[in-house]
Amino acid sequence: ESYLGKRKFRYGMAETENQIGVATGLAYTTVGGDTLQIEVSLSAGKGKLQLTGKLGDVMKESAQTALSFVRARAESLGIDPNFHESHDIHIHVPEGAVPKDGPSAGITIATALVSALTKRPIRREVGMTGEITLRGRVLPIGGIKEKTLSAHRAGLKTIILPLDNERDLEDIPETIREELTFKLVSQADEALEIALEGENE
Amino acid sequence: ESYLGKRKFRYGMAETENQIGVATGLAYTTVGGDTLQIEVSLSAGKGKLQLTGKLGDVMKESAQTALSFVRARAESLGIDPNFHESHDIHIHVPEGAVPKDGPSAGITIATALVSALTKRPIRREVGMTGEITLRGRVLPIGGIKEKTLSAHRAGLKTIILPLDNERDLEDIPETIREELTFKLVSQADEALEIALEGENE
Amino acid sequence: ESYLGKRKFRYGMAETENQIGVATGLAYTTVGGDTLQIEVSLSAGKGKLQLTGKLGDVMKESAQTALSFVRARAESLGIDPNFHESHDIHIHVPEGAVPKDGPSAGITIATALVSALTKRPIRREVGMTGEITLRGRVLPIGGIKEKTLSAHRAGLKTIILPLDNERDLEDIPETIREELTFKLVSQADEALEIALEGENE
Amino acid sequence: ESYLGKRKFRYGMAETENQIGVATGLAYTTVGGDTLQIEVSLSAGKGKLQLTGKLGDVMKESAQTALSFVRARAESLGIDPNFHESHDIHIHVPEGAVPKDGPSAGITIATALVSALTKRPIRREVGMTGEITLRGRVLPIGGIKEKTLSAHRAGLKTIILPLDNERDLEDIPETIREELTFKLVSQADEALEIALEGENE
Amino acid sequence: ESYLGKRKFRYGMAETENQIGVATGLAYTTVGGDTLQIEVSLSAGKGKLQLTGKLGDVMKESAQTALSFVRARAESLGIDPNFHESHDIHIHVPEGAVPKDGPSAGITIATALVSALTKRPIRREVGMTGEITLRGRVLPIGGIKEKTLSAHRAGLKTIILPLDNERDLEDIPETIREELTFKLVSQADEALEIALEGENE
Amino acid sequence: ESYLGKRKFRYGMAETENQIGVATGLAYTTVGGDTLQIEVSLSAGKGKLQLTGKLGDVMKESAQTALSFVRARAESLGIDPNFHESHDIHIHVPEGAVPKDGPSAGITIATALVSALTKRPIRREVGMTGEITLRGRVLPIGGIKEKTLSAHRAGLKTIILPLDNERDLEDIPETIREELTFKLVSQADEALEIALEGENE
Ligand SMILES: [Ca+2]
Ligand SMILES: [Ca+2]
Ligand SMILES: [Ca+2]
Ligand SMILES: [Ca+2]
Ligand SMILES: [Ca+2]
Ligand SMILES: [Ca+2]
Ligand SMILES: [Ca+2]
Ligand SMILES: [Ca+2]
Ligand SMILES: [Ca+2]
Ligand SMILES: [Ca+2]
Ligand SMILES: [Ca+2]
Ligand SMILES: [Ca+2]
Repeated sequence: ESYLGKRKFRYGMAETENQIGVATGLAYTTVGGDTLQIEVSLSAGKGKLQLTGKLGDVMKESAQTALSFVRARAESLGIDPNFHESHDIHIHVPEGAVPKDGPSAGITIATALVSALTKRPIRREVGMTGEITLRGRVLPIGGIKEKTLSAHRAGLKTIILPLDNERDLEDIPETIREELTFKLVSQADEALEIALEGENE
Repeated sequence: ESYLGKRKFRYGMAETENQIGVATGLAYTTVGGDTLQIEVSLSAGKGKLQLTGKLGDVMKESAQTALSFVRARAESLGIDPNFHESHDIHIHVPEGAVPKDGPSAGITIATALVSALTKRPIRREVGMTGEITLRGRVLPIGGIKEKTLSAHRAGLKTIILPLDNERDLEDIPETIREELTFKLVSQADEALEIALEGENE
Repeated sequence: ESYLGKRKFRYGMAETENQIGVATGLAYTTVGGDTLQIEVSLSAGKGKLQLTGKLGDVMKESAQTALSFVRARAESLGIDPNFHESHDIHIHVPEGAVPKDGPSAGITIATALVSALTKRPIRREVGMTGEITLRGRVLPIGGIKEKTLSAHRAGLKTIILPLDNERDLEDIPETIREELTFKLVSQADEALEIALEGENE
Repeated sequence: ESYLGKRKFRYGMAETENQIGVATGLAYTTVGGDTLQIEVSLSAGKGKLQLTGKLGDVMKESAQTALSFVRARAESLGIDPNFHESHDIHIHVPEGAVPKDGPSAGITIATALVSALTKRPIRREVGMTGEITLRGRVLPIGGIKEKTLSAHRAGLKTIILPLDNERDLEDIPETIREELTFKLVSQADEALEIALEGENE
Repeated sequence: ESYLGKRKFRYGMAETENQIGVATGLAYTTVGGDTLQIEVSLSAGKGKLQLTGKLGDVMKESAQTALSFVRARAESLGIDPNFHESHDIHIHVPEGAVPKDGPSAGITIATALVSALTKRPIRREVGMTGEITLRGRVLPIGGIKEKTLSAHRAGLKTIILPLDNERDLEDIPETIREELTFKLVSQADEALEIALEGENE
Repeated sequence: ESYLGKRKFRYGMAETENQIGVATGLAYTTVGGDTLQIEVSLSAGKGKLQLTGKLGDVMKESAQTALSFVRARAESLGIDPNFHESHDIHIHVPEGAVPKDGPSAGITIATALVSALTKRPIRREVGMTGEITLRGRVLPIGGIKEKTLSAHRAGLKTIILPLDNERDLEDIPETIREELTFKLVSQADEALEIALEGENE
């Protein structure tokens, strides 16, 4: 425990093991791309939804939309449809002093929610970005090139992108592109299948 | 699933099949017309109404008016008049970063609500615009020409408009006008009959 | 249903039949007088009051005052004094994008509320204006001349005005004045008696 | 009911008979003194307090203070100490478009509340002004001269003022002073005794 | 009751007898020191806390902190630990038009609360000032000299100050200092013991 | 109790004994470092969380995140998972007039909460700083040098810092560094173990 000891932790790098309730998103800021973590925590409660991490209104609405998608899809996902009556849900995006906004974390939030509610871990090498609609449609977003570069720097291997962003892949340098696997999805269900460990894994 | 695969999805074009709880509206912005989707999702709950998609105050009030119209008309529409006690309703308008306002999505919202509550699918080729009142009156709106052009571009075939906008049809280029069927309505009930699949279809 | 068909509807003109829960008010704007409709809708609920139509704070308080007047007077009006426990009330003023404010729709709101709660229709040829107090006093308002002209244009026949506005009648052109019947009232009860169909009609 | 009929009503003048739940206050504006009516209405409910009439924050707090004074003093005033569980209280100050603020209507509000809760009428010739504290202390206020002149104009006969405003009486013209009876009080209970009809009257 | 009668009341001077639920604080404004009264009123209710008197955010938080201190300390103070379930608490600071802010009334608010909850009267000759923490620590505040002068003018005899303000006593003119008794406290419990009458008094 | 007596108290210095529900944090302002106390108080209630001390939005969200971490970790910490149903929690940061913001008090708040909920005292010589995430990850913060100097001045002996701030230790003057013990942590659980007295101590 001396301060000269070996480092065990560096926030922002890919996790060292698959975790429950934490998904990795790709963000795009004026100074380039970044990764961010979406954390979901459940506790005994009465259905309150808490959103923290200096989130803007659009991102808060995106989280509400992701939650309604999960609630409406509860049965087919193996989630108790009344979980909201007995649990509070807290969604937090760390680095609490950094403002965050926009709809592009939608599928990341949905994935973290389903992981927390089903206890299925999220594969640690997967990053993702894409707006989600109430029906689970995945809509295109901006900053594909910068987001992909930051995902690569953070050590991620598989990148989930909206199908309607397909054309933007050509902007990514080929050397980077070859070290990553791209998954183009039009439905959040596809993203869940890619990111979540199977029930028997 | 290679990123070179064939595209299956493009948001903003007419759906490929009739859907439940999703209606197509016609919007009018400073840069021309556009189509938008109104999504409605129900989940087990206690009557909370959620409105997302960066909606302005007038559009939020329009959604509340559409919902009250549907609640007051529940019995004749075959909807459990107490549905609000056991369900939460979420109305979302995708492309969450784009601000939207105005009363002209009123009948579209009412149609999406009735579809979600009755499980009757909405005909995928129908687009609509018009303010709704508490009694279901359909009031005239602006931008008929631009809205109709965008509906045509999106592949829609039937356009529901307020009866009091009848005179504005002459502004639409004849070549476009001939490829579309116009339905002029003064009551939301007429719009519901046109847009929703029959119960025995 | 061709768009060349005969018009059946024009919003803002006198109704073609007596209706329940819709009263006609007289408004006064910087560009002259106008008529407006106050719509009231009841649905199964728990006493929530909803006010929509881009109403300013003074008009919202006026609606709350009208509702408290009706609640306090429930018994003598034949209304279940506990209606607020089992119903939600929505008051909407159409043309949702047009801002509206001021206390002068008070008696119109009270009349629409009593009509909705008693199911007594409102005479379609009656328009009215006047501030209401908690006790049902009718206070004078401005814009009598412009409001009366717009009422005449809309096809109304009977105009209910505050007694304390009596002196303003001389400002109305005689040709218009002769085609209208004026009812000067100091109590909202008088307005209700004039505007509502009798129980045995 | 012709508009040429005899006037029966003029708002702002002393009432023609003693009323329940309506007290007359004295206001002071940049253009001089005025009288105002405090109306209190009770209806079956769950303890909600509504304050309307374009009241500023200080006046709203003054009303809350007056209500807490009455609630704490309920037993000695002959009021059911649990009235707030079964009733909603609405306090309205007419002329809803005119902004009103300040603490000086405190004792007037307390008097109107006690009248509504005990059904004891308020003497129609009494006007009053003074800040109230939680304990019922009556604190001095400004504008005594202007307020008194407006009370005289409105036909009031008895004026209740804070004891600590005693020295301001000399500013009132003697001719006016002689036509009025002044009651200087340091406790709200004294004001209640003066303004309310006795139980056996 | 003639307006020429002898004055019985002047707000701001020391009370003429010990009272329950009213404590005297010392305030410091840009124009010098002043005394203020903290009034606490309890009524049958459900645990609502009301704060009035044009209080700023810091003073409101100070009141909440004082209340939490009292709630956590309820048992040792002889207060029913569930009083908040059956009572509403109203804290008011008279002279409702004068803005007040800052944390220095903390111990005064705690003293008034304990007096109201235990029915122990507060000694009328005691004034006090000091920030309170959740644990009842008393923190130093500013304006000791001005506050003490105003306490002296109001006729107070005993002044409770934070121990950490000890060094500021030397700034008070000796003639004043000799007519007052200073009590330096580091814990709110010490202030309560000094200001409240004993249970057997 | 003379004002010439010996000082017993000076706020901001290390406590004289281990306490329950009070943790010492390190703050960083434009004028240098400072220590602050996080106080937590529990009282019988219904799960309300109160946050006072002029806290900015980021600091409030940080407190909510710390609380959710504790709630999700309740069982392993020996805390009744339903404590929020029977208790209100008040978190206060003294010196109520001084604005405070930022996420760096996260682990301090978590430590104070766990102490209050488990009744385990906090070692009086420990100070700490670090952002907390929902999962209890400890993220790096700024101002390490200034914060450490102020901790030293306040008499603290053990400083808990985020592991990812390891490199900033070299900025601290060696003479100070040698008088302090540094604990670098990546998980809040490690901070709890260092700061809280053991159950059998
Ligand atoms: Ca980052
Ligand atoms: Ca491209
Ligand atoms: Ca679009
Ligand atoms: Ca035209
Ligand atoms: Ca109009
Ligand atoms: Ca005239
Ligand atoms: Ca007036
Ligand atoms: Ca004078
Ligand atoms: Ca004063
Ligand atoms: Ca000094
Ligand atoms: Ca400090
Ligand atoms: Ca460094």
